[in-house]
Amino acid sequence: MDNDLIICAARGEKTERSPVWVMRQAGRILPEYRAIRSSISGFKELVETPDLAAEVTVQPVDILGTDSAIIFSDILVIPEAMGLPYEMKEGIGPRFPEVVQSDSDIDRLNVAEGGELKYVYDAIAETKRRLAGRVPVIGFAGAPFTIFCYMIEGKGSKTFSEARKWLHSNPIGSHKLLEKITQSTINYLKLQVEAGVSLYQVFDSWAGVLSKPLYEEFCMPYLNRISEEVNSVPNIVFAKGAHFSTQDLMESSYNAVGLDWTMNPVEVRKFSNTKTLQGNLDPTVLYGDDALVVQKTKEMLTSFKGGAHIANLGHGVYPDTDWKKVKLFIDTIKSSQN
Amino acid sequence: MDNDLIICAARGEKTERSPVWVMRQAGRILPEYRAIRSSISGFKELVETPDLAAEVTVQPVDILGTDSAIIFSDILVIPEAMGLPYEMKEGIGPRFPEVVQSDSDIDRLNVAEGGELKYVYDAIAETKRRLAGRVPVIGFAGAPFTIFCYMIEGKGSKTFSEARKWLHSNPIGSHKLLEKITQSTINYLKLQVEAGVSLYQVFDSWAGVLSKPLYEEFCMPYLNRISEEVNSVPNIVFAKGAHFSTQDLMESSYNAVGLDWTMNPVEVRKFSNTKTLQGNLDPTVLYGDDALVVQKTKEMLTSFKGGAHIANLGHGVYPDTDWKKVKLFIDTIKSSQN
Repeated sequence: MDNDLIICAARGEKTERSPVWVMRQAGRILPEYRAIRSSISGFKELVETPDLAAEVTVQPVDILGTDSAIIFSDILVIPEAMGLPYEMKEGIGPRFPEVVQSDSDIDRLNVAEGGELKYVYDAIAETKRRLAGRVPVIGFAGAPFTIFCYMIEGKGSKTFSEARKWLHSNPIGSHKLLEKITQSTINYLKLQVEAGVSLYQVFDSWAGVLSKPLYEEFCMPYLNRISEEVNSVPNIVFAKGAHFSTQDLMESSYNAVGLDWTMNPVEVRKFSNTKTLQGNLDPTVLYGDDALVVQKTKEMLTSFKGGAHIANLGHGVYPDTDWKKVKLFIDTIKSSQN
Repeated sequence: MDNDLIICAARGEKTERSPVWVMRQAGRILPEYRAIRSSISGFKELVETPDLAAEVTVQPVDILGTDSAIIFSDILVIPEAMGLPYEMKEGIGPRFPEVVQSDSDIDRLNVAEGGELKYVYDAIAETKRRLAGRVPVIGFAGAPFTIFCYMIEGKGSKTFSEARKWLHSNPIGSHKLLEKITQSTINYLKLQVEAGVSLYQVFDSWAGVLSKPLYEEFCMPYLNRISEEVNSVPNIVFAKGAHFSTQDLMESSYNAVGLDWTMNPVEVRKFSNTKTLQGNLDPTVLYGDDALVVQKTKEMLTSFKGGAHIANLGHGVYPDTDWKKVKLFIDTIKSSQN
């Protein structure tokens, strides 16, 4: 690998500078992405066509100069592989025509073997061919609780109160569903590694609607199981909003912990200075002028001193961000020394 | 006042038990509310008709036995009084036909004198007549940043990225708008106190999309100004999701700090044990069976030991909650001793 900075940093090694990638870097911020996206029928066609998925995966490496590619896909391929297909509604978001409403619905779901998602592994292999060793490819999956939220609610929500209702009113059924999701995710990530990803991130996008006791009971054991069973490459856990479980995450079996923009790296380092941290510029800083972007990026880098760091935003880049500001963020990091 | 437990607790006095009220207690959980709501044209008619607003304000005192009433209204009456009217779309939420898009839009906005909202003070006076001293009435307003979010975005959002963009790309304009909102809110709350509220709460519903530096710059000064200028009755600040600013809130000029369900009262007490805390049962616990509601409510009470406490949920009660579970929550608190 020509540039293995992110792998070294994920392993906790000292690197001459922080490697950088951006959540949602392959996506609507790039005109080159939008050109491809508008030439096809929909989001799912892009996810399911390895050549196209590989093309948009490589774009940010070429255009923005990121230190890694992250495979273009969606966390909702897992519920689909389990028997609950999703639709992606343009400008609205994901929708599940059917949702889990009862224990018998859970019984009818498969544990995904992983083979259902061949298009993802093909896209990874094609991406690797195109990158030819320039930078590593990151794989990913949704955390079991976040997938659970979608399978119960069928779409995004501010509170995910239906999903949280399940945890309180049917904890046994909830664990049963989380088990099935976890096993499916393990199978899926193992095949991503086999296809060539050099590290992977688990996204717990809706962690923030829980609390410490619920996160301990319904999330941490499943997150740790994934990490322990898919352990041949380094990994990152990003539990957005889970400020209450910072200590548990810092004591987890993941190599790196991603921080959202509301978290203070200095405070988080107090729990462990051997764990790699990732993050966490507020993505709305990229709406500011160049001077602000440079200043806040440098402040962010300083706030992570004292341990290994992978630079990133604290949330997926917002689609209406000027890609030149993203490049400025990346260039600022690449020209800074640790 | 027959029952002034909540005023005593808000002032930090030791009370024989924690007083209790519930955010959104006057609302869709009660069949009696839904009966009134379905007999009229819309939500705003209810807010703007003092007799009806008073009726639904008193309902939870009669039916659920709360230790206080909170005036039935909406935080969005302030932008309306400033010249930006809102609509309430059934089953969707608030919508502003016009939003703030430029500095000149800010210049055109009024500072509300408060007199524009006579219907609120009339509803407070009518509520007091109906309560006849049984329990106090709580007034409220939105925090300046939360109102700012709505005035910029025109509706709810998961990220409020447009509002956050303003903070970074136009901090001077942002402060100008926040100033106008703050002064309007002070005028409004002073008239609520004059009309008879015994304490008031400031709701910073969207605090959680910020970070400590932004909260320090764009929120705390305005929150503190409100508290310092409207200081003849006790007050509560509820900054949902602002885990990063717990210390600033605990050092603020408010008598009481409301905690959302993701916060740990034991940790928060470490910043001050003279400040009253409010909260914070996870509202989705009320979807559980009776045994779970009683158990989790008692655990919640225990977690607040060590200082003055006002019992509440950690978020507004979800509209599909069985009101009998809310009553069980309240009864459990009322039968517990401090």
